[in-house]
Parts: sequence; structure tokens; C-alpha cells
Amino acid sequence: MTADPYEAIDALGAAPLWRYYGNLFPPEPVTAAVPFLWRYDALRPYMLHFAEALSLQEAERRVLMLVNPGLKEPPATVDNLYAGIQIILPGETAQAHRHSANAFRFIIEGEGAYTTVNGERVHMHPGDFLLTPGWHWHDHSHEGQGPMMWLDGLDYPLVNKMEAAFFELLGERLQTPTVPDDQSQRLFIHGRLTPRWLHRIGAASPIGNYPWAETEKAFEAIGDSVPGSPVDGIVLEYTNPWTGGPVMPTMSCRISRLRPGFSGQPFRHTASTIFHVVRGHGITRVNGVDLHWGPHDVFAVPGWSVYRHENLATDEDAVLFHYSDEPAQQALGLYRVDDRPFR
Amino acid sequence: MTADPYEAIDALGAAPLWRYYGNLFPPEPVTAAVPFLWRYDALRPYMLHFAEALSLQEAERRVLMLVNPGLKEPPATVDNLYAGIQIILPGETAQAHRHSANAFRFIIEGEGAYTTVNGERVHMHPGDFLLTPGWHWHDHSHEGQGPMMWLDGLDYPLVNKMEAAFFELLGERLQTPTVPDDQSQRLFIHGRLTPRWLHRIGAASPIGNYPWAETEKAFEAIGDSVPGSPVDGIVLEYTNPWTGGPVMPTMSCRISRLRPGFSGQPFRHTASTIFHVVRGHGITRVNGVDLHWGPHDVFAVPGWSVYRHENLATDEDAVLFHYSDEPAQQALGLYRVDDRPFR
Amino acid sequence: MTADPYEAIDALGAAPLWRYYGNLFPPEPVTAAVPFLWRYDALRPYMLHFAEALSLQEAERRVLMLVNPGLKEPPATVDNLYAGIQIILPGETAQAHRHSANAFRFIIEGEGAYTTVNGERVHMHPGDFLLTPGWHWHDHSHEGQGPMMWLDGLDYPLVNKMEAAFFELLGERLQTPTVPDDQSQRLFIHGRLTPRWLHRIGAASPIGNYPWAETEKAFEAIGDSVPGSPVDGIVLEYTNPWTGGPVMPTMSCRISRLRPGFSGQPFRHTASTIFHVVRGHGITRVNGVDLHWGPHDVFAVPGWSVYRHENLATDEDAVLFHYSDEPAQQALGLYRVDDRPFR
Amino acid sequence: MTADPYEAIDALGAAPLWRYYGNLFPPEPVTAAVPFLWRYDALRPYMLHFAEALSLQEAERRVLMLVNPGLKEPPATVDNLYAGIQIILPGETAQAHRHSANAFRFIIEGEGAYTTVNGERVHMHPGDFLLTPGWHWHDHSHEGQGPMMWLDGLDYPLVNKMEAAFFELLGERLQTPTVPDDQSQRLFIHGRLTPRWLHRIGAASPIGNYPWAETEKAFEAIGDSVPGSPVDGIVLEYTNPWTGGPVMPTMSCRISRLRPGFSGQPFRHTASTIFHVVRGHGITRVNGVDLHWGPHDVFAVPGWSVYRHENLATDEDAVLFHYSDEPAQQALGLYRVDDRPFR
Repeated sequence: MTADPYEAIDALGAAPLWRYYGNLFPPEPVTAAVPFLWRYDALRPYMLHFAEALSLQEAERRVLMLVNPGLKEPPATVDNLYAGIQIILPGETAQAHRHSANAFRFIIEGEGAYTTVNGERVHMHPGDFLLTPGWHWHDHSHEGQGPMMWLDGLDYPLVNKMEAAFFELLGERLQTPTVPDDQSQRLFIHGRLTPRWLHRIGAASPIGNYPWAETEKAFEAIGDSVPGSPVDGIVLEYTNPWTGGPVMPTMSCRISRLRPGFSGQPFRHTASTIFHVVRGHGITRVNGVDLHWGPHDVFAVPGWSVYRHENLATDEDAVLFHYSDEPAQQALGLYRVDDRPFR
Repeated sequence: MTADPYEAIDALGAAPLWRYYGNLFPPEPVTAAVPFLWRYDALRPYMLHFAEALSLQEAERRVLMLVNPGLKEPPATVDNLYAGIQIILPGETAQAHRHSANAFRFIIEGEGAYTTVNGERVHMHPGDFLLTPGWHWHDHSHEGQGPMMWLDGLDYPLVNKMEAAFFELLGERLQTPTVPDDQSQRLFIHGRLTPRWLHRIGAASPIGNYPWAETEKAFEAIGDSVPGSPVDGIVLEYTNPWTGGPVMPTMSCRISRLRPGFSGQPFRHTASTIFHVVRGHGITRVNGVDLHWGPHDVFAVPGWSVYRHENLATDEDAVLFHYSDEPAQQALGLYRVDDRPFR
Repeated sequence: MTADPYEAIDALGAAPLWRYYGNLFPPEPVTAAVPFLWRYDALRPYMLHFAEALSLQEAERRVLMLVNPGLKEPPATVDNLYAGIQIILPGETAQAHRHSANAFRFIIEGEGAYTTVNGERVHMHPGDFLLTPGWHWHDHSHEGQGPMMWLDGLDYPLVNKMEAAFFELLGERLQTPTVPDDQSQRLFIHGRLTPRWLHRIGAASPIGNYPWAETEKAFEAIGDSVPGSPVDGIVLEYTNPWTGGPVMPTMSCRISRLRPGFSGQPFRHTASTIFHVVRGHGITRVNGVDLHWGPHDVFAVPGWSVYRHENLATDEDAVLFHYSDEPAQQALGLYRVDDRPFR
Repeated sequence: MTADPYEAIDALGAAPLWRYYGNLFPPEPVTAAVPFLWRYDALRPYMLHFAEALSLQEAERRVLMLVNPGLKEPPATVDNLYAGIQIILPGETAQAHRHSANAFRFIIEGEGAYTTVNGERVHMHPGDFLLTPGWHWHDHSHEGQGPMMWLDGLDYPLVNKMEAAFFELLGERLQTPTVPDDQSQRLFIHGRLTPRWLHRIGAASPIGNYPWAETEKAFEAIGDSVPGSPVDGIVLEYTNPWTGGPVMPTMSCRISRLRPGFSGQPFRHTASTIFHVVRGHGITRVNGVDLHWGPHDVFAVPGWSVYRHENLATDEDAVLFHYSDEPAQQALGLYRVDDRPFR
């Protein structure tokens, strides 16, 4: 036995659990992520600046990552998820690549751009929700006027933690379309009717674009006939037509309408959530911190934080797009809701 | 040992398998069902006749059953399924009841009637597809003008064979509505967005009505951008938003658009199918028998029959609504497709 | 309008639902099946008689079907299921065939026979439970001494009702073995350890034989440490290792130990059940009819009958093997339990 | 616009994706984990030392963590999993607690200890595999002679990354048993027979102990009748009887017999694996590093490493217990196998 057994076991690759216990088994989830809000008005000028200062040849993708102040290394927006704001100018194209991380875009402003996903050109309009599931080839092109900007959502922090990240560049800059433009949307976006000559391939939704017009239609149809969720208002999930479940296996993507004057119940669960304001003004209180939000802002609600939404307007809806890692936690048997009442 | 051992075992409740073998284990499915077509124009006058001659108090439901000539006792349209045509007049109501058999209606003509399903009034329009899943209370009321007629589809032949038929009358003639009219359609019929404050209950779709307007929209959106199925054309399945699967566990309900001049490939599978012509004129050849169909006709394609559709018009679509017991056969591991080529 | 509209619609293939209503929609399941018991001692001499009088070349299978007095045409034991007793003599072989009906054998007496299932010879011993899932080739050979007898269970009544019956003879009388004898049992029958280099194929269990020794071991291990089911005693289900569910998609196969003096609670459900007495003596009261059973007897409990088991011995266990169509009813959403108390 | 737009966006919580791209989207998974082996003979004296030097009152659990040299902060054995060696002395008890991390024990040496899991005392013998699924109360007691040592396996690195770690101490030191000792093993460990009066609760297997005697029996039964996996030999998975799948949702636990002279094919997949040598001597080459192993050693194979097993003995089996995060990767759609041939 050496003089110091702790040094001895260290040399053998072992360590005393009893000196680590509390850190490894905390009473409740501990995250470095903090509640945070990214103001679109403040970031937009820099988006435009970099659009001029940096070519897409140099950047491959021209994106401002929204980095949680507590999650800088590696950068993430909340623990398992990422948000960024991407800009592309008329005439530009972005190199075709694919990665095992799942991605989507939620369009903020502009017209005339499209992304090509596994051979299908998918056109973008404000409010549209576009999918690029893991290992699907994708490139972007802009043939319209003025800058096009969108929110990018990815699960790369989770995929990287899971040691399952793969990435590949296509040999050509852009894919050659192999099916008619926007075909998947036309095939699947209608009253729950599913083409029977097609078959499910992979775990993700086959739909390239869930257009904003359908989302508006849904909110109008539902109207005020139902109370909705006391926490999240009229909250709808984008679903995979083959399963009825989330559009991709790791992320749940939803949109909420908060009625004029909506004042939500406080709630917490283990899922981490990123919110993007489609329209309206309000406050979300997260663990006692008030995040004041307006159009196109993005804000982070770390997992197991108590949050509570409020629509500040008494005459206008607020609409929030949001995504979380709830399906990943569910799949691993780790999702938990706090069912104690909050004071 | 008695003189005749066959008599002796008969007295003990036993029988020699070797005298039954071929009947019990046929090389291929044997059905008494025959290909058959029910002409709407011929039946409609009798519908109107009975509407006058017979009150709904007497009839409970005023329905002409479409009985396959080979399946009279008990009556069925194909082996596991039933079709009937129901008529209700303005001012009439039909008694509330429920049964374990699953049912749906596909509306043929009329306006102003509704069915109330588990407390929700669901209004009917031509082409709408309405669900009454097993053990859901339902009653009908007509507050419009002129007769209202629809196709009833049920799986009672299957449910009865399975010895699982239950039936109950409500103590009152009509249910009292408990939710806003047509609520489920407004909640669920839009671009694959599912309310998250609701939870799946039971095996069936929660949607009361898949409206015709959505079906038309789907056909228009898909247009001629894809070939569809060589057998069934642009064939779409009505789906359960919670699962992406069939609307009820025993029946697959679909609608097909056959393009002008469509001439389908011959096909057969073990599922039995009932077709209803929404519009158009054509021929379906079933095991060599030509069924000539026009608007609102109904026809039966028994399981394991070779069938082949043809749209006779060169300038108009034909649209066929159809339902089969494929999900039941799938669930039991008994569904089979004939993958040999047909000449 | 003809003189008699009822005749007119009949000519068109239609019938008035209102004249059929009560029969098609009974308040509770109606079956022609009756509670019935087949006494092994009475049947055994005839088994031996036919074993001498009839060659297997003539019979293909030498089986006495156990026909429910209420279900003679077509013959069945309960509504969806069949039981028969098969006998094979030393030196005999039974022709290889396959059918879409699922089958199993529960061995009653004899040693030295085997069945060959998809190329695997599976040897039989009293109490063993052998599977022949749908569309698996199977033939039988007897290389031992004395007659070999077993209970055959099949779902052909269900498969035939579903219009999904296929049957095929092999070109040769017997299959050539392609794997070592009894291989599947050795691969899968041990403490919940599953070979990982194999993959699930089809819906049925891959196990050829669930040997009696394991069943005895299970009863001994469980002993009297737990109360078990108040209805069925220590009731164990034979399971499919790939799913944890029933061994075949249409039949649930179980074995129950009723302790000395066991007097069960009355119960009913919509599944129909066939019981086979492995050992012991008792009474099962079915809808008020007392069935007195002893070793190797078989008895039928039709669906929705109230039944109640009693072990008449105060010093010996009774052991019942039983199978029902519960999984088929579950898969179709039709299974129902009577949860009202019985007096 | 400020002088330096990069500083400006940093102040707003944003960062330029183009400066991070390659790190966030590597061509293949990148891990800090290294192939490593922990020698039992070297660690055992320190286990005994700490058993004397440190009371269980101080330590709560007396465990040497096996820390991968590349994964020290926080400590883990491979990316998502942990292994430790625990020791308890006669007369000792370890405090009852529960955590959302899933845990198991694989017993190395000693007799007479038991763990109490949700009220069931589960006794330990060398080679036994015991479960403590997430959020199950567990405490340990040793009533035998001599030290008791076992391998602890946990998914806390994954659970902590997922921000889903919860932990709770019981108010008492030990649980009061609520069911007979070792009941779950007696109920479930036998030839694929499942008690029908019980119901599935939660996502994990209900079995407290998969005893070594059953594992030996499995290897003997399978013998040399089948080739097994060219990579992992006769590899068996411990399964959940309710599902046929892995015993806990995040970890796949398996045991492999490598025949005398076995020389495996090289292989890689994205799952990270920890191996524990039950018996035998061999070499596993991991990404070109040779790990020479003997009885009770533990070694780490990081995800996406090429590994290849060799049993050095020509007259003795080697037996390896191993566990990986494959089910977690599968559940998230991230599992991938390298199907290119290795040279």
C-alpha cells in the first residue's frame, strides 16, 4: 500500500465516489443555462452588416448563434438545443451538406428563398415551419428581393453529447431537384388525409413545410371555443403524419396562441424550451426573472425552471413558436413534470 | 366398441377431422360473397317511399341494408363489413343509442342534419365523412329542408362474428350537447397540428367529421404532380391524428381520385372492400365480372378477388370512397397481398 | 313503385334494417356455443381404434375434432377456436403441409415423436407446449414406442371467418431438417436471455417447444408466496421473447395452477376459452352448468359466460392449460371484461 | 454600428456560427474518451483498504469509480455510462436512497449480502445481475462472511447531461421489506412464462435478479450448436419480460461467451460500451490499442471505436458482461453501425 491510497487509485484510473457524491447525484436537475432573451431589433442590424461583410462562400452558413450566457463552451441555447438566426441575400446560395443533427427553420421575414431538402425545393414564407431531419441533404437559394431571415433550430448539442455527430458535404454546391417543388406539403398538408401509395421512411415527418397559412387557419378554426392549456394557451403541436407524434424524434415543435390578457399558470418540467415570438408583446417570468418580449425575439427557458407566460396586450393575441427536448426525455424515461402547486 | 365408431364419437361430441379436411383448410380463401353493385338511382325512390311510409319512431333507423346476394344470413355487404343507405326527413330525430360496432357515415345528399356523438353535434354536408366509433352514443336530427341521405358503414358482421356485440339505448331520445357544435373538426382538421392540452382516449380518431372541403382541397393540392397508386390512383386514407393510422381499429377508410381515362392495374388482397361512387362513371372488373358504376352507386369487392378500376370518362375525374377490413386482418397477422403478376 | 316495396328492394339487393335490428345489434354477445366437456377416458378408446383402422396416408392427420354441440357447421370448439386430439403410432409419419391458421400442440401422452417445423425437429414430451405458427411448414414423425397423443389447438375458425385461409402441401412427405434438433428451445428457453445475433421474423414466437420441465419449475419457484389471480390461480402466459406478448397474434396460451381447495371468483369476459386438464380433478361452473373434470379432459367456456373454477382435491394441485382469442379481440378493440360484481 | 461587430453581438448573447462550424459539426463522432482497462487485481487491495479505513456511515456508498482518463470532469467511464466497484463488509448497511439514474449491479465476489429494492430483498451471488431502475428505493445489507464486491453500472452521465437528475434519501436507513425475499426472480425467471395477474409498471424490467445459474444454463443449452455473432460470440441480452426489450430504457446489458480461440471480426457502432470480464483471458483491440484482460477486469470501448475481441485460451471459454447506451441512441434515432468492411 502506498503512502497515499487516493494517489494510488488515481494512478489506476479510479476515484472515490464518496468525494463526488453530491455533485453527481443532485437533489434536482442543475443546469448552467440561464433564462435569457435575444432581442430581434438589436440583432437585426448585425445580421444585415454581416450579410454585406461576409460572403456565403466564406461562411457556408451566415448565422448568428444565440448562445446562452451559461452555455458558452460548447455553445448552446438551452441544454440540448440550439437556436440561430440565419440571413441570405438575393442571388446567394448556401452549400449543400447533411448532418446527423436534426434541424428546422421558422421563417421570420422575406420572400423568394427556398431550401432544397433531399431533392425537393421547399419555398419559404414568413411563419412557415420547414424541416431538415437528420442526414437529409439541404442547401439554400434565394431568388427573391431583399434579405431573407429565419430562425434555425437544431439538436446538435444533444447529438454531440450523444457522440453521434456525422457531417458530410455534397460534391456539388447545390442539389438537382428530383421531385416537383413543394411536393411533400401538397401531399400531406390537408385534413388528416395520408397518401397510401407512399410508405414511411425513417423516423421523421416527410413534410418539408408546414405553411403559416395552415397555422393561422387552425387558430381561427379553434377560436375561443375551448379554454386550451392554462399554461400554454391554445398550444398546437406540428406532427408527423405517419405516427401522430413529434416531427423529429428529439424535438417537440409547437405553436401557442395566448389570448388578449392571457395570464398563464406557472409550470415546470424537465424539458428545456426555446421560444420565438411570432407576434405580440408579453412577459414570461422564468424562475423569478421577467423576460419582456416582442415580435421575433427569442428566449430560453432552461429545464426545471418555473415559467409563466403573460400577454400584455388586452386587444391582441400573442403567438409563440417553441421547441423543446421533451420527446428525447420521454424516449429515455426521464421526462418529469412538477405536479406540486406553485404559490 | 359400438358397432359404428363414427356414431359413437359423435355422441361424445367428437368428429373425424379427416372427413372435413379440405373444407376447413382450403388452398385459398373461400367466400360466399359475390361481386355486386347497388344502383343508387334504383334504390332512391324506395328510400323516399319508406321515408313517407315508415316513421322513425317505428324504425329507430330508416336504412336500406345493401345485402350481398351471397351473404344473406346473417346479412352483410362483404364478409366483415356492412353498408346501408339511411334517410331522414326534416323535423325527424333518431333515437340515441350506442353499440360496440364501429360506424361511420359518408354523406350523399341533403343539408341541415346533424348527428350528435358523445355530446358533440356534428353537421353533415355532401361528401363529409363522419365517425361514430364503437360504444359512442349517437342520435340524429334533421333541421334542414328536403330529405337527407347518407351511406352508413359498419363492422357489425365482424363484431358479431367475434362475439363482442353490445348495444344500449339511452334513457332519453336525444343527447344534450356538452361541447360546442363541430368542435372536434375545428380542433383537429388543419395542417397536421394537434392540440396538446388534449389526450388520446380510446382506439379511434377523436374527429367527428372529415369535411368534403378538405378532401377536395387535398385532391387539388396533389393534382397531377405524382402518379399515385397504379391500382387505386390518388388514394388517400382518413387518419387518426393520435396515431397516423386508420380512423378505427377494424376499418380502413379511403378516398381515391381516378384521373380521366385511368385504367388501373389488376390487384388482389385478402381484405374485403366496399366502394361508394362520389362522382364519375366507370367500370370495376372483379374476378371477370364488370361492374358499371355511376354517381352514388355502391359496389362490393370480396376479399381475394382480382379487381381493376377504369374511369370511363376521358375528361372527368372519378372519385371513389372505399373502406375495407385491412386493419383487422393486419392486426391479426392475416393480411396478404397477391404479389404474382396478373396477365 | 311496385305493389310490394319490400319485394322490390329485395330484387335490388337491399333489405330493411328495421326488420333485422335486434338480431344484428343484441344487447350482449349471443353465441350458439354451449359449455361442454369432452371426457378423455371416453374418447381414448376411439383414438386407439382409429389409429388401427385408418392409416395416416388416408387421413393426412388422424384427429378427433372436439365439436361444440352448438357449433357444428362449420365445426368449432368455441367461437373462434378449435381443439382436437391427435394420435400417431410408432413408425408413422404425417405429411408436411402449411396453412395460414396458427396451431399449437399440448402433449398428453407418449414419448419418441417429433414435429418438424420450418426445418427444425421439435421433440415432444408430456406437458410440452409446441408451436406451429401460421404458414410454417410442419410434419410429424414417431420413432418411439406406443401411441403418442396430444391436444391440437388452432384458430382456423377465426382465420376462415376472416377469409384469410391458405393451405399448401409440400412436394415431399417430410421436410429435410435444416438446423439442429430442438434448437429454438435451447436458444430461447432460459432466464429471459435473448440471443442478439438473431432478429425477429414475423409476428409469432420463434420457440418451437416450451417444455413441461420449465413449467413445473415455474410453479415450484412461485410456490405459495403470492396469491395469484382470484379467478385463475397461479396463471402464467407462454410469451413471445421478442415482444413479451402472446406466442401468436390470435391466441393467448396460459397455464394455471389451482391450489388444493382453490375456489375461484366468478368472472366473465368476451374471450372464448378452451381448457385442458393437465392434472387434478375439479368443477368449473359455466353459466350455471357444472362441468366435472379430470385428467386430460377438455372443456369449453364460451365468451361472455360466467365461469368459476374449483379444485375438488384438498391435498393436490389441479393444473389447467387454456387458450383463448383474447389477443384477437384486444387487437380489434373489442375485448371487454364484466367488472360488475357477481353474486 | 460599433467599431467591432463581433464584440457587439457578443454583448447581445450572439456568436458567429462560421467561426465554430467544424467543431460543432464534425465529420464523425469525436470523443474525449479513450480505450482503457482497469485491472481488478490492482484495484482490489485498495477496495479492501478503504473498506477498513472508511465507514459506510461516512461514505454512504463505498465505491471506486472507474474514471476514463479522457472523461475526468465530470467523471465517467464512457460518454454516457459509468462503472464502479463497490465493497461492503459483513454487518454493514448502506443508506436507502433513490435517484432518477438507472443502476444495476453485477456481482464479482462474496456471499450473504442483499439489496432491498422497492421493498424486495434481493440476494446476491457471484455472476448475478441485479437491477435498480430509476427512482426505485434501494439500500444494501451484508449478513454473510468476508467482503462482498460488485460492479455498479449507472447511466448518471447521460441522466445528468439530459438535465433530469433527481435524488432523494429515505427517512430511515433501511427499507422495511414488503414482499417475500427474491420474489420477482421467482415470478419471472423461468421458460418465458409471465404471471398474468400482474401488470407492467414503468419502463423497466420488474426482475430484481437475473441469477448466474440461469446464465450458465443458457450457455450450456446453446453450446456449440450455433455460430453466434462473428463480433461478439454467443451474445445474450438480459430482457424485460413485459416488452422483450432491454431491461432499462437507456442501457442494453448483455453477456457474451467467446469460445476457446475465438477471434472476432472488427466492428464499430456509435454506442459506447463497458466490458467486465466474468472469466477467461483475452485481448480486445480498440482503435489499434490492445487491452489485455483477465478475470474481473473492466475495460472501456468508446463509441465509434473499431474493436475486435480475442479469446487467448484455446481450451477455455472467456465470458464478458457488457453494457452500452445503444437503446438510448436507438430511441433518439441516432444509432449507427459502420457497415463498411474493415481490413
